[in-house]
Amino acid sequence: MTQIPIARAKRLRSTPYTSRIEKQGLTSYTIYNHMLLPAGFEGTLEETYNHLKKDVQVWDVAAERQVEISGEDSAELVQLMTCRDLSKSKDGICYYCPIIDDQAGLINDPIVLRINQNKWWLSIADSDVILFAKGLAIGKNYKVNIIEPNVDIMAVQGPKSFALMEKIFGKTITELKFFGFDYFDFKGTKHLIARSGWSKQGGYEIYVENTESGLELYDYLFDVGKEFNVKPGCPHLIERIESALLSYGNDFDLNDNPLECGFEKFVNLDSDVKFLGKEKLKEIRAIGVSKKLMGVKFNLDKISLAKAIDINVGSKRIGELRSAVYSPTFNQVIGIAMIDKPYFEIDTSVEIKIDNDTKTGTICSIPFI
Amino acid sequence: MTQIPIARAKRLRSTPYTSRIEKQGLTSYTIYNHMLLPAGFEGTLEETYNHLKKDVQVWDVAAERQVEISGEDSAELVQLMTCRDLSKSKDGICYYCPIIDDQAGLINDPIVLRINQNKWWLSIADSDVILFAKGLAIGKNYKVNIIEPNVDIMAVQGPKSFALMEKIFGKTITELKFFGFDYFDFKGTKHLIARSGWSKQGGYEIYVENTESGLELYDYLFDVGKEFNVKPGCPHLIERIESALLSYGNDFDLNDNPLECGFEKFVNLDSDVKFLGKEKLKEIRAIGVSKKLMGVKFNLDKISLAKAIDINVGSKRIGELRSAVYSPTFNQVIGIAMIDKPYFEIDTSVEIKIDNDTKTGTICSIPFI
Repeated sequence: MTQIPIARAKRLRSTPYTSRIEKQGLTSYTIYNHMLLPAGFEGTLEETYNHLKKDVQVWDVAAERQVEISGEDSAELVQLMTCRDLSKSKDGICYYCPIIDDQAGLINDPIVLRINQNKWWLSIADSDVILFAKGLAIGKNYKVNIIEPNVDIMAVQGPKSFALMEKIFGKTITELKFFGFDYFDFKGTKHLIARSGWSKQGGYEIYVENTESGLELYDYLFDVGKEFNVKPGCPHLIERIESALLSYGNDFDLNDNPLECGFEKFVNLDSDVKFLGKEKLKEIRAIGVSKKLMGVKFNLDKISLAKAIDINVGSKRIGELRSAVYSPTFNQVIGIAMIDKPYFEIDTSVEIKIDNDTKTGTICSIPFI
Repeated sequence: MTQIPIARAKRLRSTPYTSRIEKQGLTSYTIYNHMLLPAGFEGTLEETYNHLKKDVQVWDVAAERQVEISGEDSAELVQLMTCRDLSKSKDGICYYCPIIDDQAGLINDPIVLRINQNKWWLSIADSDVILFAKGLAIGKNYKVNIIEPNVDIMAVQGPKSFALMEKIFGKTITELKFFGFDYFDFKGTKHLIARSGWSKQGGYEIYVENTESGLELYDYLFDVGKEFNVKPGCPHLIERIESALLSYGNDFDLNDNPLECGFEKFVNLDSDVKFLGKEKLKEIRAIGVSKKLMGVKFNLDKISLAKAIDINVGSKRIGELRSAVYSPTFNQVIGIAMIDKPYFEIDTSVEIKIDNDTKTGTICSIPFI
């Protein structure tokens, strides 16, 4: 695929870290929530993958914007938007929450941070959740305040992230449980830090509200991190597909529902909380889904996917490949595909066409690892 | 500024025309409504500008997505979202409509096409208006259907667009009034065509619903257009700033209201239609705006703007430059800036810093031409 530069403008917002990462070997950008999100750094995809799995990386993921919902009706509004039961949620915990509309179509899949019962942050994937929340709040006359706060996340990811963060924040930060968050001091400034991140390699996300202190911390992470072989990085295509960290807009969107995407764990239809699309989801559960996200493997040594690729069985289109990459772990191409009923069974043999060549693959479960 | 490639993925949607424009000298992309929007073609910016002003260009502006709102409450919902009085609107006409929230913050500035009283298309700028409309509709229990239809606009822009389109669609298309639309036949397929487009050079937008026919038409425009020196193009930075065609996300956003952006003509506070933010706008009108979009001119022969640049008077920050370009017409840099009261007066002398150098400019009215 031809490499085409991105045209810069204010509308494609920079982050506080932009000027730094552009001096650190950045090789490509994507756009996420109207903001620059680094998509590659120097080295082959396999080299940066190996580094992420072995050492530690600092990521500019400011494009994971926050929607802050506060006020006396905030808990009711947040619950209305998600099929996950938040009635027993606790302060200081992150919750992965599919957000759906009244037809159960997926609008986003944020991490919801309950700061307190009357203040929530939705750490969003790539869609304007703030507009959905505003529309609902206005329509329902809720007493809430909805803003995009000035929060620019940097993530510290990889197995050595724990040692690096301990060196800066002390032992207590290693005691933070997975998806817990708390405030930690860096040279006199408190930062909200969660044990989370868009990789399965372990690590933290630092929700930087004080930009100046955040930039000092960014530089400090690279200084202190030398002994851990720290490098700049970004969400990694190989790692995220192997781990089946699904990507909104790539693997699923408004035309898909949570039961089709394997989110059953986060669909609480049998509690008495009130949320949009609940009746629709009950109907779907009763009759079963008509399509499902599955893994696919192909004996190929490369793939380049810029849009969905039709998946066929014989002459029949039975689904589409939505993300794919060559995996060094499996020594073949792996991908995430939406597959129609009844073809979404493991070991089904399927075909795709690449440059007019038919390639055969096999349906499998996800995650791959 | 370093040229950094865009990483391709399904999430940054291709258009039906993508494979064509990539063979036609495309030099850069932007992302708009989660979709690829061409941002430059071969030739200097001044060459493509001169071509647009003299001849005719075909633009892939599929990224101008449609939000279709239909059903018995559709007119009420569309009116609720915009401060423009649509009570006397007519079928077959396009209306430029600022969309605002209950605090009068700008959410988008679409062209609204009234297809009929119960079916509207909002041809949107870069934000997920569909989510705002869905939130409102759900919250208010409106009987509407809200979808993103399969519409991929191509624009034909420039003074020779009329002759080119007449050759394909016959004399009647030249009789279409500005911002009128109708259906026109191309080889047996009807296409909705509006006399509109994101330049002041005249032309049409073809709302392609039948992709196959649209692609045939795309190729045909280039065949037939040879005698008019047709070239591929895209919304043009110089042309749009000179004409002050404002760009959502660049020149204004949720933190600005329509009275600050010079949209008075489209703010109908004295009619009795019901829309969000009406009381807030009445308050603002009564006390006057605290900031305003203005033009600025600088005696510079180039500028590169990737984010807002502070505008100062002495040591005081009094606004920010949001878009800017070197204009061959004025032989200097011109830009669009949000300027605080009381500095938003014509001829006010202001300063910006570029690479630690202070440059002096002058506030002026917009449009420049």
